[in-house]
Amino acid sequence: MKAFVMKEIGRVGFLEKPLPRPGPNDAVVRTTRALICTSDSHTVAGGIGPRENLTLGHEAVGVVHDVGSEVKIFQPGDRVLVGAITPEWGQPAAQAGYSSQSGAPLGGWKFSNSKDGVFAEYFHVNEADANMAKIPDAVPDDMAVYCADMLSTGFMGAEHGNIPIGGTVAVLAQGPVGLMATAGARLRGAGFVIGVESVPARQTLARTYGADEIVDFTKEDVVDRIFELTGREGVDTAIEALGADSTFQTAVKITKPGGTVSNTGYFGEGEFVRIPRVEWGVGMADKTIATGLCPGGRLRMERLLRVLENKRVDPTLMTTHTFRFDEMERAFEVADRKLDDVIKPLIVF
Amino acid sequence: MKAFVMKEIGRVGFLEKPLPRPGPNDAVVRTTRALICTSDSHTVAGGIGPRENLTLGHEAVGVVHDVGSEVKIFQPGDRVLVGAITPEWGQPAAQAGYSSQSGAPLGGWKFSNSKDGVFAEYFHVNEADANMAKIPDAVPDDMAVYCADMLSTGFMGAEHGNIPIGGTVAVLAQGPVGLMATAGARLRGAGFVIGVESVPARQTLARTYGADEIVDFTKEDVVDRIFELTGREGVDTAIEALGADSTFQTAVKITKPGGTVSNTGYFGEGEFVRIPRVEWGVGMADKTIATGLCPGGRLRMERLLRVLENKRVDPTLMTTHTFRFDEMERAFEVADRKLDDVIKPLIVF
Amino acid sequence: MKAFVMKEIGRVGFLEKPLPRPGPNDAVVRTTRALICTSDSHTVAGGIGPRENLTLGHEAVGVVHDVGSEVKIFQPGDRVLVGAITPEWGQPAAQAGYSSQSGAPLGGWKFSNSKDGVFAEYFHVNEADANMAKIPDAVPDDMAVYCADMLSTGFMGAEHGNIPIGGTVAVLAQGPVGLMATAGARLRGAGFVIGVESVPARQTLARTYGADEIVDFTKEDVVDRIFELTGREGVDTAIEALGADSTFQTAVKITKPGGTVSNTGYFGEGEFVRIPRVEWGVGMADKTIATGLCPGGRLRMERLLRVLENKRVDPTLMTTHTFRFDEMERAFEVADRKLDDVIKPLIVF
Amino acid sequence: MKAFVMKEIGRVGFLEKPLPRPGPNDAVVRTTRALICTSDSHTVAGGIGPRENLTLGHEAVGVVHDVGSEVKIFQPGDRVLVGAITPEWGQPAAQAGYSSQSGAPLGGWKFSNSKDGVFAEYFHVNEADANMAKIPDAVPDDMAVYCADMLSTGFMGAEHGNIPIGGTVAVLAQGPVGLMATAGARLRGAGFVIGVESVPARQTLARTYGADEIVDFTKEDVVDRIFELTGREGVDTAIEALGADSTFQTAVKITKPGGTVSNTGYFGEGEFVRIPRVEWGVGMADKTIATGLCPGGRLRMERLLRVLENKRVDPTLMTTHTFRFDEMERAFEVADRKLDDVIKPLIVF
Repeated sequence: MKAFVMKEIGRVGFLEKPLPRPGPNDAVVRTTRALICTSDSHTVAGGIGPRENLTLGHEAVGVVHDVGSEVKIFQPGDRVLVGAITPEWGQPAAQAGYSSQSGAPLGGWKFSNSKDGVFAEYFHVNEADANMAKIPDAVPDDMAVYCADMLSTGFMGAEHGNIPIGGTVAVLAQGPVGLMATAGARLRGAGFVIGVESVPARQTLARTYGADEIVDFTKEDVVDRIFELTGREGVDTAIEALGADSTFQTAVKITKPGGTVSNTGYFGEGEFVRIPRVEWGVGMADKTIATGLCPGGRLRMERLLRVLENKRVDPTLMTTHTFRFDEMERAFEVADRKLDDVIKPLIVF
Repeated sequence: MKAFVMKEIGRVGFLEKPLPRPGPNDAVVRTTRALICTSDSHTVAGGIGPRENLTLGHEAVGVVHDVGSEVKIFQPGDRVLVGAITPEWGQPAAQAGYSSQSGAPLGGWKFSNSKDGVFAEYFHVNEADANMAKIPDAVPDDMAVYCADMLSTGFMGAEHGNIPIGGTVAVLAQGPVGLMATAGARLRGAGFVIGVESVPARQTLARTYGADEIVDFTKEDVVDRIFELTGREGVDTAIEALGADSTFQTAVKITKPGGTVSNTGYFGEGEFVRIPRVEWGVGMADKTIATGLCPGGRLRMERLLRVLENKRVDPTLMTTHTFRFDEMERAFEVADRKLDDVIKPLIVF
Repeated sequence: MKAFVMKEIGRVGFLEKPLPRPGPNDAVVRTTRALICTSDSHTVAGGIGPRENLTLGHEAVGVVHDVGSEVKIFQPGDRVLVGAITPEWGQPAAQAGYSSQSGAPLGGWKFSNSKDGVFAEYFHVNEADANMAKIPDAVPDDMAVYCADMLSTGFMGAEHGNIPIGGTVAVLAQGPVGLMATAGARLRGAGFVIGVESVPARQTLARTYGADEIVDFTKEDVVDRIFELTGREGVDTAIEALGADSTFQTAVKITKPGGTVSNTGYFGEGEFVRIPRVEWGVGMADKTIATGLCPGGRLRMERLLRVLENKRVDPTLMTTHTFRFDEMERAFEVADRKLDDVIKPLIVF
Repeated sequence: MKAFVMKEIGRVGFLEKPLPRPGPNDAVVRTTRALICTSDSHTVAGGIGPRENLTLGHEAVGVVHDVGSEVKIFQPGDRVLVGAITPEWGQPAAQAGYSSQSGAPLGGWKFSNSKDGVFAEYFHVNEADANMAKIPDAVPDDMAVYCADMLSTGFMGAEHGNIPIGGTVAVLAQGPVGLMATAGARLRGAGFVIGVESVPARQTLARTYGADEIVDFTKEDVVDRIFELTGREGVDTAIEALGADSTFQTAVKITKPGGTVSNTGYFGEGEFVRIPRVEWGVGMADKTIATGLCPGGRLRMERLLRVLENKRVDPTLMTTHTFRFDEMERAFEVADRKLDDVIKPLIVF
C-alpha cells in the first residue's frame, strides 16, 4: 500500500509499505479522510527526534478492513473514527484517569510517533474496541475527522480550564486548536470569551465559534486590553493554544487569582517555559497551571460525534483546502509553510 | 409602605408596613420588578410552617435606597439584582463552599422565610456588598430579575450534574426551573438533551432552550423511551426539576452507572423520598445523588448577568403574564392556581 | 482441580473442575490464600439469582501459573494479588472513571458472578496486566489478600466521602468493610471518627483502626448521640457499611448540610431504599449521596500494597479464623452463620 | 501598648502604639502566644515593599478583649485562635472558594502586610466571627498557635497535591511548613513519603512527622534518587516547601505524568520561576501545578484544632526556642539569622 512518510528529518515523500495486520486486540482501517496537523511539521522538523520512513499523520477516519480475534464491537465494513491518541487502557496511568500518558509520558500518542501514522491507504489501531467509534449516519467523514484531534484537544483546553457558567475566558491564538478551544469555552458556558489573534480570517472564524471580543496582539497590549475588558480582574481561565514561552507568560498574567491557566500548546523550544514570578502571586495566588494531551478513546469519540450530530459546532468551516491523497506532497507543503491562509487541509483517499 | 403578605396559612393580602432600615452591613432596595415563584405558593400553603403577616417573594431587582455604614461597593441610586438566597458569608457552611446552608440547613434562604420578602415597595438586604450585583446597562430589569432564582437554580441543576461535553442529559419537568436546567445543560456542553414534559407550551419552550428531544410522560413510558433514545445506556445526568417521589425514582432509573442524579426540586410531601433499590445498583452502581439550594451572592449574580448581557439565554420568553404591583392578588391567584398556562408572572412596581 | 461451589441456591460443596486456560490477555493463578466475604453468603442465598456449580469467592492471592500471548508484565512464578473486581479497562464506563461498572452495572464484578470465583486450586484472571499486582516481599500473603476487597471497598467509603483534614466522620457498622472504612477515614485525615457498633470485639477493633468514639445503637439513640458529639452540627461524612434501609436513613440524618453520605453497603432487600425527606433538607441541603463498588485494577492494588508495606494499617487483626481449603465447608458455615464472633476467616491452600 | 515593629526596611524594634478599637464586625485580642515566621524576615528585608512602623507577626493566639456591635459568637474572655490569613468572606474571590485572595491577590493576608500584625500586646481582627475559633480546653496555647499558619499552610500543600490513598509524595525542604506538609501527606493517606532535607535535626523531625525515606541533596542527586525510590515512575505529588527556582524545577522533574506539583513556597527572587520544558512533557504530560496561600477562617481553624485535640499531630516538637515578648529583639535575630538550629521560636506574652 501507499504511505506518506517522513524519510528522515526534514524530508518527506511517498513509500510503498506492506498492509498492516491486526494482533488479537487490534484493527486495520482503510483510510477515507485525514487532516494534516502542525504536529506533523514538528515531527518532520525533528521535534520528537530522528525517524526513518515513519508514516506521518494522526487524524483520520475510515472503514474497518480487518479485526483481531478478541475484538468484539467492530467488524469489517464499519465506518469508524479513531482518536489521534490510542491509549493502552489497562496501564496504570490510564487507570488513574490519564490515559494519554499510558505507558510513558505522552505514551498514548502512538500514530506517527511510536508506530506508523494514518497517511496511508490502511492503518493499524491498537485496542480497537477501546479506541474507535462508529460514525453516525448524520455525520459525514469530512466532519467526523475533526474529532480525532482538533475537537478533542481544543475542548480539553476548555475542560481543564475549570470554566464556571458565566465565567470569563481568553483563548490565546486562534489556530485550529485555539478555535476549538473557543468553541469549547462556549460549550462549558463561558459568559465572555476573548480570542487573541492577528490574522483576519482567523479572527472571523473565532467570532463564528463564539468569541465575544477579539484582541489583536499586533495592535494593542494583550495584558492591558484584557484587564480593561474584565474590569481590571483578569479572566477565570486563560487557554494557551500556541505553545510559546511569551504566550504562556501572558496567560499567567491575565489569569485572576483562583483562576486556571490551561495549556493545549506543544512547547517545542528552549530549556524552560517561564512563569512570571510576581504576576503568579509569588507562588501563592491560587493560579493553577493545567496541561494535557488530546484525550482519546471510544467514549470520548462518541461524545464528540454527538456534539457534531446534534449540530453544536461545525468544524468544517476550518477546512480551507482539500487535496487527494496523491497530492499529499503539495498538501504537506501548504500546511508546513502555512501558505495561502491555510487552517486545515483535508486529505481525500 | 405597601407589602403583599401571607397573613396566615392559606391567606394572602396587602398590608402597610414601615420602611426597613439597614444595619451596618445592609442595604434597603426600592423594588422595580419581581417574579412570583411556586415556592411562594408552598409557603402560603404552610410548607415552611405558620407565619404571620410575612411579606412574600424572593425574586426581585430594584434601586438602592439606603446603605449601612460598612457597605463599600453600593450606594443609593445603583440599579441592583439581589439573589433569592442571601447567605451569611462568614459562616462555616459558607466557608466550606455551601453558602446556601449558612447558619442552618437552607439557612441562606431568608426572604419570605426568616425575614420579610421582596413583594413590597422596599426590601432589606443583609450583607449587601456580598449579596447584590450591579445590573449592566444592556440588561433590562425585566430580564435581570430572572437571575435571582430561576437561572441560578436551573443552572445549578446542570452544574451539580457533572455533565461532560457531549454527554446525555434528561431534565424531568419543564417548569421555569426545568427550562433553565435545560438551558444550563446546553451551557455545560451536553451533546443530547431530553426534556420530559406534557404541556405543549412548555414543550415548545424546552426546545427553544435547548432540548433535542421531548418525552411526554402522558403518552409513553419515560424510562423505556429514554433507554431507547440513549442506546439502552441511560443518561449521564438526570435533573429532577419537579420535587416528586415518582419523578425522583424515574431519575434514578434512567441514570447510567457512573452518572449523576441532580436534584433541584423541593420535596414537599411524605416521610420519605424513595430510591429504587435495584436500579440504584443495590447501592453500588456509582450513581451519585446531588442536591442543592439556589446559589446566591454577588459573584454568582455577576456571572449570571454576564450570561444575559452576552445573549446566551433569553429568560423573558418565560414571562407569560405581567401585572402591576397593585394587581398582586390576581397575579398570585394566577400563579397559585396555575391558570391560563402561566409560566412566570412578572410584577411591575 | 478442586473447587468450592454454589451447587444451587442454598447449597454449597466441593466439585472437581478442569483447570482454566488463559485467553490472549489473561492469566491463570494458583491460589495460596483466600478470604470469605459476606457477599459469598448473599450469593448462595440467591442474591444475584440462580447459579449452578458456580465456584465461589472473590478475595485471593496466589502464584501465576500460566499467561496468555499478550500478557507482558507477569510470568509464571510471580506472586500476585488480584482485585475482587476485574474490570474491562477499555469499556466506556472504565474510560469515564467508573471501571467497576464496565460492561454493565457492577459489570467489573466477575468472580463468582459472571464467571467462576477464586475458591479453587486455580483461577482465571481477565486482562491480567491490568488486574493483577506483584506482592512486595515485605507483605505476606495472609496480609496482601485483604487488599482484594476489604481495603479497597472500605477505603473507597472514605474516599467517596470527601473528608476534609480535621473533618468529622461516622462509620455505621464495624464489620470488616466498616473497620477498613474507619481506617480509611483516618488515612484521609479525619479529625474525629465515630464508630457505630454494638459487638464488643468489633468496638475494640474499631478503636484500634482509628475510631475516637464508639456509639452503641443498642444503648443509645444514634442520631441524638452523634449530634451531641458534634456540637449539634452532624458529621461531614457518614459512611454506610451495612446495607440496611434504617442505617441508610440514619446516615442521611446525621450528615450536616454540605456533607456526604458515602455508601459501601450492599442493599439486599426491599423495593426501595428510603431517604428521610425533611432531614435530607427537602432535597435542597447539599447532602450528596455517593455510592460505589470496590475499585479494582493494578494501580489500585499497588497503592493498597504500599499502604501495607509501609505499615499504615494491619488488616490481619481481622483474621479471627484460619482454615485449610479442605475445611472449606466448615469455614463457610462459620462465616455464613456468623459463628464464634467471626470477622474474617482466612483460607490456606 | 507595646508593639514590635518593622521601623523601615532592614530595621526592627519596639514601639508604643495605641490600643486598637474594633469596628462593628471586628474584635481586639490580647495576645498570649505568638510564633515568628520566615515571612517576617522577608517582610523586614523589603519583600513586600517599604513599610513604616508596621507591627510584625501573623501567628498568634490570645484572649478576646473587645468586640464590635455585630459580633455574635465571641465575647471578651474567650480564648481564641486567629488565622494568619483573615479573609473578607463576602468578596467575590472568597465566594469562588479562594478566600485567601479576597479583595486582591493574596488580599486575605492582612497582618503585618496591609495592617498591623500580632507582635503586640493586643491586635485587631477583621470579621471576627468568621476569622477566629475558640480553642478547646485540651489544646494549650503553645500548641494551638501552630494552626494559624504552619498547619494550615503545610496541610494545604498536601491537600492541593491531590494525594491518593497509597500514593507517593516527595516534600522538598523540611522547614516548619515542609514538616507540616509531611504530616499532611500522611494525613491524606500517602503510602510512601520522601522528605528532602540536609539538616540532621530536620531530617529527624521529618521522620517523626511521617517521612518514610530521607533524601539529602548534599549527598545524592535528588531526581535520580527519587526515580530510584519510585520504580522509575516519579511521585504522584511533589510539594515545594522552600520557594526556590531550582527546587521548583526538581519538583516538576520528579512528578509523574498525571501527578501534581503543589507549591507552598514564597518565591522571593528573580523575574521568573522556570518550568523545565522537556520534563514537563512539553506542556502535555498532565502535570498540574497548584499553588495557594495559607487558608484562614473559623471553619479551617476549628478543623485544625480538632486535629490537635485528637492527637493526630504534635507541632510543639518544632518549638526549638522560647522567648518572652520583651526578648523579641533577640528572638527575631535568632529566627532571622537561623541561629542555633532554630525551627520555630515561640513568644510568650
